[in-house]
Amino acid sequence: MALVRSVEYQEASPEVRAVYDDIMATRKITSINNFWKVLACDPAMLKRTWEEVRDVMAPGTLDALTKELIYIAVSATNNCEYCSHSHTASARKQGMSDAMLAEVLAVTALANKTNRLANGFRVDVDVSFKPKFD
Amino acid sequence: MALVRSVEYQEASPEVRAVYDDIMATRKITSINNFWKVLACDPAMLKRTWEEVRDVMAPGTLDALTKELIYIAVSATNNCEYCSHSHTASARKQGMSDAMLAEVLAVTALANKTNRLANGFRVDVDVSFKPKFD
Amino acid sequence: MALVRSVEYQEASPEVRAVYDDIMATRKITSINNFWKVLACDPAMLKRTWEEVRDVMAPGTLDALTKELIYIAVSATNNCEYCSHSHTASARKQGMSDAMLAEVLAVTALANKTNRLANGFRVDVDVSFKPKFD
Amino acid sequence: MALVRSVEYQEASPEVRAVYDDIMATRKITSINNFWKVLACDPAMLKRTWEEVRDVMAPGTLDALTKELIYIAVSATNNCEYCSHSHTASARKQGMSDAMLAEVLAVTALANKTNRLANGFRVDVDVSFKPKFD
Amino acid sequence: MALVRSVEYQEASPEVRAVYDDIMATRKITSINNFWKVLACDPAMLKRTWEEVRDVMAPGTLDALTKELIYIAVSATNNCEYCSHSHTASARKQGMSDAMLAEVLAVTALANKTNRLANGFRVDVDVSFKPKFD
Amino acid sequence: MALVRSVEYQEASPEVRAVYDDIMATRKITSINNFWKVLACDPAMLKRTWEEVRDVMAPGTLDALTKELIYIAVSATNNCEYCSHSHTASARKQGMSDAMLAEVLAVTALANKTNRLANGFRVDVDVSFKPKFD
Repeated sequence: MALVRSVEYQEASPEVRAVYDDIMATRKITSINNFWKVLACDPAMLKRTWEEVRDVMAPGTLDALTKELIYIAVSATNNCEYCSHSHTASARKQGMSDAMLAEVLAVTALANKTNRLANGFRVDVDVSFKPKFD
Repeated sequence: MALVRSVEYQEASPEVRAVYDDIMATRKITSINNFWKVLACDPAMLKRTWEEVRDVMAPGTLDALTKELIYIAVSATNNCEYCSHSHTASARKQGMSDAMLAEVLAVTALANKTNRLANGFRVDVDVSFKPKFD
Repeated sequence: MALVRSVEYQEASPEVRAVYDDIMATRKITSINNFWKVLACDPAMLKRTWEEVRDVMAPGTLDALTKELIYIAVSATNNCEYCSHSHTASARKQGMSDAMLAEVLAVTALANKTNRLANGFRVDVDVSFKPKFD
Repeated sequence: MALVRSVEYQEASPEVRAVYDDIMATRKITSINNFWKVLACDPAMLKRTWEEVRDVMAPGTLDALTKELIYIAVSATNNCEYCSHSHTASARKQGMSDAMLAEVLAVTALANKTNRLANGFRVDVDVSFKPKFD
Repeated sequence: MALVRSVEYQEASPEVRAVYDDIMATRKITSINNFWKVLACDPAMLKRTWEEVRDVMAPGTLDALTKELIYIAVSATNNCEYCSHSHTASARKQGMSDAMLAEVLAVTALANKTNRLANGFRVDVDVSFKPKFD
Repeated sequence: MALVRSVEYQEASPEVRAVYDDIMATRKITSINNFWKVLACDPAMLKRTWEEVRDVMAPGTLDALTKELIYIAVSATNNCEYCSHSHTASARKQGMSDAMLAEVLAVTALANKTNRLANGFRVDVDVSFKPKFD
């Protein structure tokens, strides 16, 4: 049970309902998942967060699936059970196979490992890696 | 200055030199970056880590650039200065534009945000997200 | 089930019981929560940790509720389920509303986001932000 | 040096300049700090992030200084050098004393400690802490 | 339920079965724990990860139990429920008492605390701590 | 430069000076490192933190060097530059060799990796790992 009450569609204010409607229309789904029902305790936070998810996760120079894979990598790094489940489900809908999930997590695990080797040994950044702008 | 001495090519043991040679051959470069020179204080760790980087980062069901983008996302999440620099340099060589880097970090930042909303409110995972195997 | 046995009041040593008594007296409660019963496996750790919690969380230049809000923000960032529950319960007793909790988590989420943008882009600290002492 | 070029006011597009103008007007300052100049590499990210900072950090049920203190706590937890400097500078402008900063960090340090004790011992959440909604 | 199907011994490919056999022989056990059954979705990842665990956790200049204690400290810091349980079980088999577990977590908690004090106050590294190589 | 002024011995209050004296006597050194000079901005925090370091890091069921190794592992995981330097220096004084440091960081890196595999795949804890108390 979350730390605040969930807001169901039928009891939602027009402001919250408008966000719920946009979520269902954008994602072509017919129900709202728990994350949004909890954020609805603060309608401005709900609206702001949904619009950011909608806009940032839309295809840009990166396609939508690549963005989901990055989301999975970060959620595994931070140990967010909810986000691991929701974004794995979303990535699978967009075609992620078991093999792709395994590769995402292999890279995630490797980066978490080498991040600690570089930080733990306090390795100096090579001058050749530094960006040069003129 | 790192916490152990770097091992330069000319003073390296044959075991370390073999890894350095494989790094330069695989990446078509002519010098070794600081990370490997520091890991060389433990030749078995150097060999194991390099072989993992070489194998995991090679194209599979995900292409090599997508893997670099995931590496950048994890390194930003963990705040590894060395890895942010080295993998941004590597991704740029493989064609990452400023716009792509900005999108990687926008998704990374968003996931770090929603991870804390989901964990902070202790949102329950929707049953519909749970995988079903038979 | 925790990784060590909990120590109940009736079986506790005088040393542990003295800490339990101080917890109940300070907080005006009549039972001990699981965290302390687990720490009691090491009486010195129990005493040291309780005294730190009691002294650090007491009103100072910051009031007690503000301190609880900071605790909630850190616990959400680190994903500590136990601490999220215990400090939310404690903050509610001291008057935290749903709206306040939502604001704490909105700031927490935002900071987690911008922390990764600043670290991910490796933004240099502005000279004007550096403290000056004479 | 950041991983992308900074965008100075005089070379900025009208879209970026509009955000810079809003930052300076809202904060009553006459120059733009590095964070925003770097985010300007992606004008949509700049606009979205600034508007979130502006709206979330404005006084609500929590006052503006309390929000800055929470920001400092999260930035210390995540080790964001940039954000520690920028939000400490901002909090000092709003009246934060050395004693208040020390109390914020004392609570932050304590929470980071007890988060690991609760997670490390896998302490079960007390039923009495669970929220009850009807 | 994990995000991919577990691979049981009787249905495993010869490649996976070879790793399972090595795990059971090395550890003198007769069944495989869930972690490996899940990694088996990617046989190369299973083999690479097992060989790293086997080689890194073997006695070296540090004995095997000390290595398990370090594993427990890191898993508590990152909040990995699975690894806290599996490595506590493993350390207990090798002789870890409750008192030793309490000391590991006391040091872990203290380091998590002082890490945030040092980072939060941005304390400069003393010149005397910097390594000197000639 | 830290975010608050350092307190030098000659300007310190009797309360702060007593802690400095205890640090120097306990460690048989003749100067105070930056961490304590910064914490001295809050004498109660200085005293509490020093006494915890002194008591927790003293030999118990674990020897002092093992405790330093755990400190190094946590500091590498959290990326605390200050603590990595200070505790590496301290561990070297107590006999830590380069080979031992490499092993600590190899275990730390491996745990950081498998923590993300276990969390990323959401692996269920084996019943056999769960502690049983009666």
